[in-house]
Amino acid sequence: MVAHILLIQCPDQPGLIAAITGILYQFNVNIISNDEFVERKGNWFFMRTEFSGAFEQEPLIQKLSAALPSEAVIKLSPGANKKIVVLASKEHHCLADLLVRHHYNELGAEILAVIANHQTLEPLVHKFGLPFHFVPHEGESRESHEQSIAAIIDRYNLHFVVLAKYMRILSPQFVSRYPNKIINIHHSFLPAFVGAKPYAQAYERGVKIIGATAHYVNDHLDEGPIIAQSIIPVNHTHGAKEMQQAGRDVEQMVLARALRLVFHERVFVYGNKTVIFD
Amino acid sequence: MVAHILLIQCPDQPGLIAAITGILYQFNVNIISNDEFVERKGNWFFMRTEFSGAFEQEPLIQKLSAALPSEAVIKLSPGANKKIVVLASKEHHCLADLLVRHHYNELGAEILAVIANHQTLEPLVHKFGLPFHFVPHEGESRESHEQSIAAIIDRYNLHFVVLAKYMRILSPQFVSRYPNKIINIHHSFLPAFVGAKPYAQAYERGVKIIGATAHYVNDHLDEGPIIAQSIIPVNHTHGAKEMQQAGRDVEQMVLARALRLVFHERVFVYGNKTVIFD
Amino acid sequence: MVAHILLIQCPDQPGLIAAITGILYQFNVNIISNDEFVERKGNWFFMRTEFSGAFEQEPLIQKLSAALPSEAVIKLSPGANKKIVVLASKEHHCLADLLVRHHYNELGAEILAVIANHQTLEPLVHKFGLPFHFVPHEGESRESHEQSIAAIIDRYNLHFVVLAKYMRILSPQFVSRYPNKIINIHHSFLPAFVGAKPYAQAYERGVKIIGATAHYVNDHLDEGPIIAQSIIPVNHTHGAKEMQQAGRDVEQMVLARALRLVFHERVFVYGNKTVIFD
Amino acid sequence: MVAHILLIQCPDQPGLIAAITGILYQFNVNIISNDEFVERKGNWFFMRTEFSGAFEQEPLIQKLSAALPSEAVIKLSPGANKKIVVLASKEHHCLADLLVRHHYNELGAEILAVIANHQTLEPLVHKFGLPFHFVPHEGESRESHEQSIAAIIDRYNLHFVVLAKYMRILSPQFVSRYPNKIINIHHSFLPAFVGAKPYAQAYERGVKIIGATAHYVNDHLDEGPIIAQSIIPVNHTHGAKEMQQAGRDVEQMVLARALRLVFHERVFVYGNKTVIFD
Repeated sequence: MVAHILLIQCPDQPGLIAAITGILYQFNVNIISNDEFVERKGNWFFMRTEFSGAFEQEPLIQKLSAALPSEAVIKLSPGANKKIVVLASKEHHCLADLLVRHHYNELGAEILAVIANHQTLEPLVHKFGLPFHFVPHEGESRESHEQSIAAIIDRYNLHFVVLAKYMRILSPQFVSRYPNKIINIHHSFLPAFVGAKPYAQAYERGVKIIGATAHYVNDHLDEGPIIAQSIIPVNHTHGAKEMQQAGRDVEQMVLARALRLVFHERVFVYGNKTVIFD
Repeated sequence: MVAHILLIQCPDQPGLIAAITGILYQFNVNIISNDEFVERKGNWFFMRTEFSGAFEQEPLIQKLSAALPSEAVIKLSPGANKKIVVLASKEHHCLADLLVRHHYNELGAEILAVIANHQTLEPLVHKFGLPFHFVPHEGESRESHEQSIAAIIDRYNLHFVVLAKYMRILSPQFVSRYPNKIINIHHSFLPAFVGAKPYAQAYERGVKIIGATAHYVNDHLDEGPIIAQSIIPVNHTHGAKEMQQAGRDVEQMVLARALRLVFHERVFVYGNKTVIFD
Repeated sequence: MVAHILLIQCPDQPGLIAAITGILYQFNVNIISNDEFVERKGNWFFMRTEFSGAFEQEPLIQKLSAALPSEAVIKLSPGANKKIVVLASKEHHCLADLLVRHHYNELGAEILAVIANHQTLEPLVHKFGLPFHFVPHEGESRESHEQSIAAIIDRYNLHFVVLAKYMRILSPQFVSRYPNKIINIHHSFLPAFVGAKPYAQAYERGVKIIGATAHYVNDHLDEGPIIAQSIIPVNHTHGAKEMQQAGRDVEQMVLARALRLVFHERVFVYGNKTVIFD
Repeated sequence: MVAHILLIQCPDQPGLIAAITGILYQFNVNIISNDEFVERKGNWFFMRTEFSGAFEQEPLIQKLSAALPSEAVIKLSPGANKKIVVLASKEHHCLADLLVRHHYNELGAEILAVIANHQTLEPLVHKFGLPFHFVPHEGESRESHEQSIAAIIDRYNLHFVVLAKYMRILSPQFVSRYPNKIINIHHSFLPAFVGAKPYAQAYERGVKIIGATAHYVNDHLDEGPIIAQSIIPVNHTHGAKEMQQAGRDVEQMVLARALRLVFHERVFVYGNKTVIFD
């Protein structure tokens, strides 16, 4: 018995939950879990429902659409595996973690391919029997490089693009092709230390904590809705190298947590923020 | 506009959410937030609804009762302040934190009185202008001591009894007078180091982490449903005294967090566990 | 038997530890703990020694000075209580925590007085029997306001000035009177959200973590050497008010931890960073 | 320029640091970092010194021995890579993490081989080009099974045996062959939930936190000196399976942290505790 997940967001008004669950009841499905939230400032309603049972998809969505405000966004997806493509550069830690979890069916997603602008990680990807596409950026304009990447991505039928330490800035044109579908792991607590060499910056500033932020990429690389953040303590004995290793460990951990939330359809994007039912 | 909180638990069956929210819609109240959970093993349904609006309480509960399975437990309470009595012994840290939060209206509850089996903390309580009842246990049987305490408690019209480092073991007879109403902070991760001198035990064992557990007291002192737990790191340089100080800090923090959850009616007790909508 | 604490920093060179501990051995004191660290980039040596025993202070320092490079900074202090003055504004949480710890001899410091630019906290301070100086800033130039504060501070013979949510920006002139002696708690992870209304900023950005930073104030208010940082998780259900409460809780915790380190002479300031032997 | 690490533990007495660092000074080596600690209860002295430079090893140790109490334990080791053998069973998460870190030279140790009582993990180990020894336990007495394992281990010249979720209880006879050389990751906070099915136990108890403990195995499997502990928060929505996944994540993290400490010679074992200079 496969679980289905229904995500609805729309302007709030009285009776929404009664209306929606009433329709689900008519379709004879069995609600497993249900969460709602109303963002007061924007008067916006969010609902996530997990349910099982046999039903016809089209009529259900039509009934829901008819009952809800016209601005409603309705997303019905199987709880089954998502399909993803991973972009990487030279650093292995996040990619290796995804490959291992994928190999043992713990990722909640199927990795269709890895695309990278360096060849460094090809042997690692091949160890796990997955396709690796090398798309060099040298001697290419950003536009043509991104077109090459997009051409490969679009060969696959995917739900999400995961940037596992992909170190090139993506243009708004590229990003706008995949709205709310690109997930990045950032080397710091946003909005601090946004620039290059974040660990050198952190070391110079003498911070006592190193963080990482997983977020959607919707426009500028490091500015989208935040999904997960975490930290790891450091101290004066940590040089640049040790801070970087601490950073890698927390990045890997935060990306895994964020992807678990995204792949289980627990995350709504709302403006530049997320609503997460965890 | 006062918020109301409705807590329902009952055996799960199809249509529960539709039925409940349908009734709320008939009563013209405005749902602010709503959470449901089904515990699969026991097939048990939990729902917490926060709503505002004017309505008649009796008819609403009657309608709900009629629509729900006979085993349903329905609790409707105002979101307003709870009333509590605090029991303490000699240690000040948890009590002082509660007194300060109470003084600045941050506790989410009104402290009606403090009862203690030592006089140590009387000056502290009087600083904040609250009644202090000294009920010595020396020369008293446990039964008669507990009767004296219960006599005082029962003078007050209260929702919860908070044990803020009250160090006497309470008898099952006493505890059964206040089912799901007594909250304790325990000096360790349950179920570890249950006995006396937990910090000496932790020190001897060379632990790297000190924890604390806030829980309901429903039968034996340290065995009830867990509400919140947290930890604080320690190391070999921490002697018994420093471990105790670390323990105090984490106890104070965990008790405050647990009470926030309890006072906002976010906690269901279900068997020996809790379901918490946070 | 009182413990003494010796802090030395100087350019690194071979034989420093042997020389210093050799001298201590000659003076017949008993080393309880000892920590050294060499900052490689600056080739700078740090040593903290805790020892007990009877000895003459002047000759010891003379011997050490003679044996060490001329740039050496030698600080010998009793492990006993520090003396401090606390500056506050309207928010109570950090001040109340310090007052309670002080009242129960857990602070490691004696609070000589509280100075505030509002009268809000006067009753709280008086509950604990401490002097409260109200120094209003309205109608005063920053210069004259700071002179009034400095005049009061200078009446006391103190080791540190603690800013417990003192919300006025201090001028470089004021700060330079108390080098490495002013400790502040900042409402965020530095360097993020430096401006006003940090919780509104954090809420708008949809962060999943709220932090706090305790640091020395050596020039600009929020820029000095970091002593301690910590975080508390938040989510989309936290509005501005709940984020602020979470922020208060973590600020109080971080300030207490930083002060414990400072009062036990565990912190060296080195450029804009700290070396902490914890 | 290779770093060397000197670990000394002995009964405390005045002048130890001066004596030791004086000898190091005579040998013309350059101290990089130095830590001491005295365990008061046992009056026991610990010192870890990292230094560089050319020197003759035998004479240095002889000089140190002559200057120290007869009970002194002196360990001089190169800071270079340790050599280890890993024991595993069926679970992949800790082993995979070690293999990836090893592959990218981040482990601080060379994995010489993996030994397992199941064949499950053989393909994973072979992906990374390492020897895999399958030593089945079925139909074998514990004694003969352990002899087979020891025979393989003893072929290698190793510093440590790492139990990466090796699920067989080791006999005291086996353990005593490798004193302070076996490191285990335990599926919980010791001493809680020591038995089988710890996540089922944790789920039944409704814990809000899942922990893991890395420790030396010196006698009974789950009782040795603790090296590192950490936790991950869980809640009522986590079933047995999700708690297990959370447990895996924290186990992997804690084992990696403990091994980093051990491989950099930062850990002293003292009775049933550890002294760690981090």
